[in-house]
Amino acid sequence: MSRTVKLAELSWPEFAARVAENPVVFLPIGATEQHGPHLPLNVDQILPTAVAERVAEKVGGLVAPTLPYGYKSQPRSGGGEHFPGTIGLDAHTLTLVIRDIVCRLAHHGVRRIVLVNGHFENAWPAVEGLDLAMRDIRRDGIEGLTAMRLEYWDFVERATLDRLFPEGFPGTELEHASLLETSLMLLVRADLVDMSKTPDDGPATFPPYDRWPLRADFVPPSGVLAKAQGSTAEKGQWLMDDHTRLLADAIRKEFGL
Amino acid sequence: MSRTVKLAELSWPEFAARVAENPVVFLPIGATEQHGPHLPLNVDQILPTAVAERVAEKVGGLVAPTLPYGYKSQPRSGGGEHFPGTIGLDAHTLTLVIRDIVCRLAHHGVRRIVLVNGHFENAWPAVEGLDLAMRDIRRDGIEGLTAMRLEYWDFVERATLDRLFPEGFPGTELEHASLLETSLMLLVRADLVDMSKTPDDGPATFPPYDRWPLRADFVPPSGVLAKAQGSTAEKGQWLMDDHTRLLADAIRKEFGL
Amino acid sequence: MSRTVKLAELSWPEFAARVAENPVVFLPIGATEQHGPHLPLNVDQILPTAVAERVAEKVGGLVAPTLPYGYKSQPRSGGGEHFPGTIGLDAHTLTLVIRDIVCRLAHHGVRRIVLVNGHFENAWPAVEGLDLAMRDIRRDGIEGLTAMRLEYWDFVERATLDRLFPEGFPGTELEHASLLETSLMLLVRADLVDMSKTPDDGPATFPPYDRWPLRADFVPPSGVLAKAQGSTAEKGQWLMDDHTRLLADAIRKEFGL
Amino acid sequence: MSRTVKLAELSWPEFAARVAENPVVFLPIGATEQHGPHLPLNVDQILPTAVAERVAEKVGGLVAPTLPYGYKSQPRSGGGEHFPGTIGLDAHTLTLVIRDIVCRLAHHGVRRIVLVNGHFENAWPAVEGLDLAMRDIRRDGIEGLTAMRLEYWDFVERATLDRLFPEGFPGTELEHASLLETSLMLLVRADLVDMSKTPDDGPATFPPYDRWPLRADFVPPSGVLAKAQGSTAEKGQWLMDDHTRLLADAIRKEFGL
Amino acid sequence: MSRTVKLAELSWPEFAARVAENPVVFLPIGATEQHGPHLPLNVDQILPTAVAERVAEKVGGLVAPTLPYGYKSQPRSGGGEHFPGTIGLDAHTLTLVIRDIVCRLAHHGVRRIVLVNGHFENAWPAVEGLDLAMRDIRRDGIEGLTAMRLEYWDFVERATLDRLFPEGFPGTELEHASLLETSLMLLVRADLVDMSKTPDDGPATFPPYDRWPLRADFVPPSGVLAKAQGSTAEKGQWLMDDHTRLLADAIRKEFGL
Amino acid sequence: MSRTVKLAELSWPEFAARVAENPVVFLPIGATEQHGPHLPLNVDQILPTAVAERVAEKVGGLVAPTLPYGYKSQPRSGGGEHFPGTIGLDAHTLTLVIRDIVCRLAHHGVRRIVLVNGHFENAWPAVEGLDLAMRDIRRDGIEGLTAMRLEYWDFVERATLDRLFPEGFPGTELEHASLLETSLMLLVRADLVDMSKTPDDGPATFPPYDRWPLRADFVPPSGVLAKAQGSTAEKGQWLMDDHTRLLADAIRKEFGL
Repeated sequence: MSRTVKLAELSWPEFAARVAENPVVFLPIGATEQHGPHLPLNVDQILPTAVAERVAEKVGGLVAPTLPYGYKSQPRSGGGEHFPGTIGLDAHTLTLVIRDIVCRLAHHGVRRIVLVNGHFENAWPAVEGLDLAMRDIRRDGIEGLTAMRLEYWDFVERATLDRLFPEGFPGTELEHASLLETSLMLLVRADLVDMSKTPDDGPATFPPYDRWPLRADFVPPSGVLAKAQGSTAEKGQWLMDDHTRLLADAIRKEFGL
Repeated sequence: MSRTVKLAELSWPEFAARVAENPVVFLPIGATEQHGPHLPLNVDQILPTAVAERVAEKVGGLVAPTLPYGYKSQPRSGGGEHFPGTIGLDAHTLTLVIRDIVCRLAHHGVRRIVLVNGHFENAWPAVEGLDLAMRDIRRDGIEGLTAMRLEYWDFVERATLDRLFPEGFPGTELEHASLLETSLMLLVRADLVDMSKTPDDGPATFPPYDRWPLRADFVPPSGVLAKAQGSTAEKGQWLMDDHTRLLADAIRKEFGL
Repeated sequence: MSRTVKLAELSWPEFAARVAENPVVFLPIGATEQHGPHLPLNVDQILPTAVAERVAEKVGGLVAPTLPYGYKSQPRSGGGEHFPGTIGLDAHTLTLVIRDIVCRLAHHGVRRIVLVNGHFENAWPAVEGLDLAMRDIRRDGIEGLTAMRLEYWDFVERATLDRLFPEGFPGTELEHASLLETSLMLLVRADLVDMSKTPDDGPATFPPYDRWPLRADFVPPSGVLAKAQGSTAEKGQWLMDDHTRLLADAIRKEFGL
Repeated sequence: MSRTVKLAELSWPEFAARVAENPVVFLPIGATEQHGPHLPLNVDQILPTAVAERVAEKVGGLVAPTLPYGYKSQPRSGGGEHFPGTIGLDAHTLTLVIRDIVCRLAHHGVRRIVLVNGHFENAWPAVEGLDLAMRDIRRDGIEGLTAMRLEYWDFVERATLDRLFPEGFPGTELEHASLLETSLMLLVRADLVDMSKTPDDGPATFPPYDRWPLRADFVPPSGVLAKAQGSTAEKGQWLMDDHTRLLADAIRKEFGL
Repeated sequence: MSRTVKLAELSWPEFAARVAENPVVFLPIGATEQHGPHLPLNVDQILPTAVAERVAEKVGGLVAPTLPYGYKSQPRSGGGEHFPGTIGLDAHTLTLVIRDIVCRLAHHGVRRIVLVNGHFENAWPAVEGLDLAMRDIRRDGIEGLTAMRLEYWDFVERATLDRLFPEGFPGTELEHASLLETSLMLLVRADLVDMSKTPDDGPATFPPYDRWPLRADFVPPSGVLAKAQGSTAEKGQWLMDDHTRLLADAIRKEFGL
Repeated sequence: MSRTVKLAELSWPEFAARVAENPVVFLPIGATEQHGPHLPLNVDQILPTAVAERVAEKVGGLVAPTLPYGYKSQPRSGGGEHFPGTIGLDAHTLTLVIRDIVCRLAHHGVRRIVLVNGHFENAWPAVEGLDLAMRDIRRDGIEGLTAMRLEYWDFVERATLDRLFPEGFPGTELEHASLLETSLMLLVRADLVDMSKTPDDGPATFPPYDRWPLRADFVPPSGVLAKAQGSTAEKGQWLMDDHTRLLADAIRKEFGL
């Protein structure tokens, strides 16, 4: 029944009726960013949307349109803006976008908001956008709004990671276009994955600092930070099960559902 | 062959290869805005995307992800932000979003850009965003970029409008959730249209001024500014044929294709 | 009795006394923009001021100092910023100016404000500036402010246009430095009009899109978008009579005067 | 021949012809601010404009339209924003206005610019606006622009002040709506001065600090900071002679005229 | 007992306990700016901090960390940004810094704030930052906050200046790296003063205007605007005694201590 | 020889002479933030400054004045802005501060810049500020600037952490006012540490999401996220040795020293 969770597929009277039930409204925050030669540029749009829609179905929520452009890709987490097709916004721009949307939702009576981030670099502009929105909302005299903000990949069991990485989890900091994202994409949009192009040049071994301008040897040529080989839709399902279950649990707890 | 026109479904090496051919890159600019009880909130996302994708196929272009949130809805053109589910950005926010995206495309080597607007209120923030981007791009030493900016509905033959409105075209200023948009939606996303809910309360007769705060009787209760009755997918096809043909012609002329 | 309507010619005790009567305060929004070889750069300052002052006399209002610089001229409506002497502000700049002025007026107790636009391109920055001001004013706890925003040329009878254009009104979109503005200038500041320089190169026939950079043949070399020949002060009087009467009527209705 | 110095009364071909002669372009920066019960709110618009026009006639310059709204009035220099009719802009707003205008003038080929300030509080936003403009102009590759920025009242001979204040000059810091401004207004716009209302409550004796919120006894109730009694048009002429002569001399020296 | 006045050397429970006593919180606003060949770049950080700490000890206050970067140095008051080591912020940047800090202090319950400026050019950004903070604080529903803003050097007896300058005080406008600042530095941080490098090239004789770009002969090569010879720690003590006593008196009066 | 590394203790001729040697200029980015009952609010100012000064001595650099106010404290990394004495800036504010300083350094000829962050939440505003500065610097035609940005605590050997935490390192995400920071403070400013107040309420066990408004039980009452017991100056020395050695190595490598 995916129609009911997509906020923007409702007519306005339907939206009004839904908001009267005090639903959780999810805002997925994505990016248009390189994800190696085997994945499309919209991975960070597709995955948080997929997670949000599944969780929304569990908790009776609505998913607002996903933000397709995120904060500028950084070398150590996403390869960098120089990679072709990577289209990042300035931090202030993204912050204002999130502030404006959260404020509008609040003015329409939404009191439960969850920002689901799908692009690591969005984390801080999202924090700031939400913080500014909460400040403005208070000044507008609106009360009772609760908001959560999170990265979907943090909702995973340790056991699942151990199962996925029998030789040890390399850490989320290298998870860009690698096993986790590739497996999830194989689950939800296999048509956009070309496993034959999975590169062999990782894992990246970043120094503990950023550098401007970027050094040529800083990021693997493929833009993939760790191995994607071995990705399967089944593994994607393990992850998706964790993400949706754990996130739904957290939401139910925070919003008293 | 829709895969090839969707920019964000490319991998980065595919994007790089495409940009090397100097394609036209389209940026559809949408909105999340009430469109009456018979249409969803995402009409202004779906239609410019549909037009842009069809034109891109004709001229060998790429369509960047559609902006799902536009400038604040105004009573005289879209009903207003008070309508449930209408989520508008401040003008400065939208301007910065467009500036950032155009700048990034230019830095990636794109030299032909077309902003396809699907929400009337976006027109001026888009003008400003593009103007600021062109200023920044010049400061960055990038040359040779040409950009167009347009509302898709302006690409229509007078004869088509006469055929659609035998009793006279009421004017684009009342075309919000009315015959044109409804017919186009019946063509491209009929599953999101519920003709049984087409309201009867238009047409709106606006005074020649804006007013803050909004008067209760300013906008028809349904949010529909003119009649949507009589909308059909066939009429949508007449429009879509005009939009794509005339727009492709204009693009070929301006870019020398 | 022009002294009484010019806000800035009052002393502060006089202003205070006037505001205590709850007057309508007009803010004319102008521009410094080319208006062809026969008209000065300040047409868009002079005309909305003249209209506002006449209406203010009818409804007992005050006219704040006219903004002499407006939003950047656009090719399709005013010729463009490249025309010598055209001095436009960025949209955000003009928006902040209008926001600040409306907020200050509200803090001084003004509760009836009318923004009278004389330059087409100002319309949207004025909408945004007023919208931001209303938001701030609410946050400041000020209640009861009503504001109108309009283009003065929209206050005209169809019959008057028919009388002025026996062969059919070309539409306001081409009315830049043409018959309407020229006639009004002959009425109020004939000393600044040189009818001997009225150009012959219109009317402009714009394509339905904007283009950056501007094509050389986009705008008539004179900067005049339609014919100005045949302009007379008498025709200017017809227009001025409509503008002032219809606008005064609208104001009386909205403010309950 | 006042027509030739008013930039905005030129047509665009006339402006282009004038700019080709490399004239000095003056931008008077005014305010809408209380000036006691005997003077109008627009003193700070009228006086820098009058000075600029007179100097422009001497040096063959052009005077751009005066900015009618300045930075927020401060208690120690202008009484404060709480005085009725005082309409100040935020500093950032005024800064952007000045930046935008100077940039536009530079793009039109103007290479000699003089900002003539008539409102003390404008000094720093004008400095910043001009500094930002010079930075942007350099980034745009424009060379050879020289700009001056000044308060007109600083162009006065010590002997003139001694003649005006036989008992000693109280200092420019108290000169608000006092002898100097009142005399100049009697010279250039006597119709707006009502000497019968000259107050008796000065001079102000400010402590050496600002205070928020304002203390009731901080500013004289009249808003006049020092005596205006004894003001005459003749004294205004003494001042105007100094202002125009000394400013013209400085301009000739700086621009090599 | 310097520990007690340094806000940032408290732990948070200590801060909370101190704020409960409604102390005066001082924010020194400094700069990193050339002060001639005999003084370090941080004079404008050290001196307002030293004054604030001494006053805080007298009135039982706390001194927040000094802002080490101020508004851009101007030729007529500080030599200009082109002097090596001079690191100024844009006005808007400094304004936002001050706004944010004052707002945060207010949210923590501070109700008595004194901004102690040590760099002339900071005066207006500090005014604006404080004004914006007071506006925001009102919107946040916080009441009862009183703030002062001042330049520490204005708290001096006429007799002290006469004693320091037997031949007449040249005026604060030339006091940059000169006798007053040098003497104060000899008092509080003699280790950073090298009197052997005191230059001989002043006093500066500025014209009454600013000029962009800067003329080579506008500022003395040393960056010192008036004589520093004759500076002594004893003279610094005379000044410091005045500053602390007069400022403490003003604070006690305004805050009713 | 600490005098030579403190940029702001130089006179401008000394600064100029130093910059001519192409030194590394360090900008420590701190905060005023709660660090539990046993540490002062300025830990995040003191520690990055101490590291930067030690490294500057090794590599012949200069340390610019430390930014004493950072980005708003977040519950999961620093406890949150509600803790008394925590004074955070908005992200845009801090970004502009860093942008301005880096631009000014570049204009003064500095070509090697290292931002040393001492407050986790500053990381992203620092990235953005540096990125904006590099963009502006390119537009200003300045070439050859290389910049690094880092958190000092990332420069540590695994062996050192193992030695410090024989039972396993709890992770930097909980290192706030805990063993590492407390030990370093005991090393460099023991006078500001009160080990008798070390709290017992950690470690924090955060859920994997942010929440607005903050839940009362989200952060330990003390604001300390993990145990500080067992902190010693000796352990601080182990850390400091790693930080300075590894950071100096990285700098030498990147700048070719």
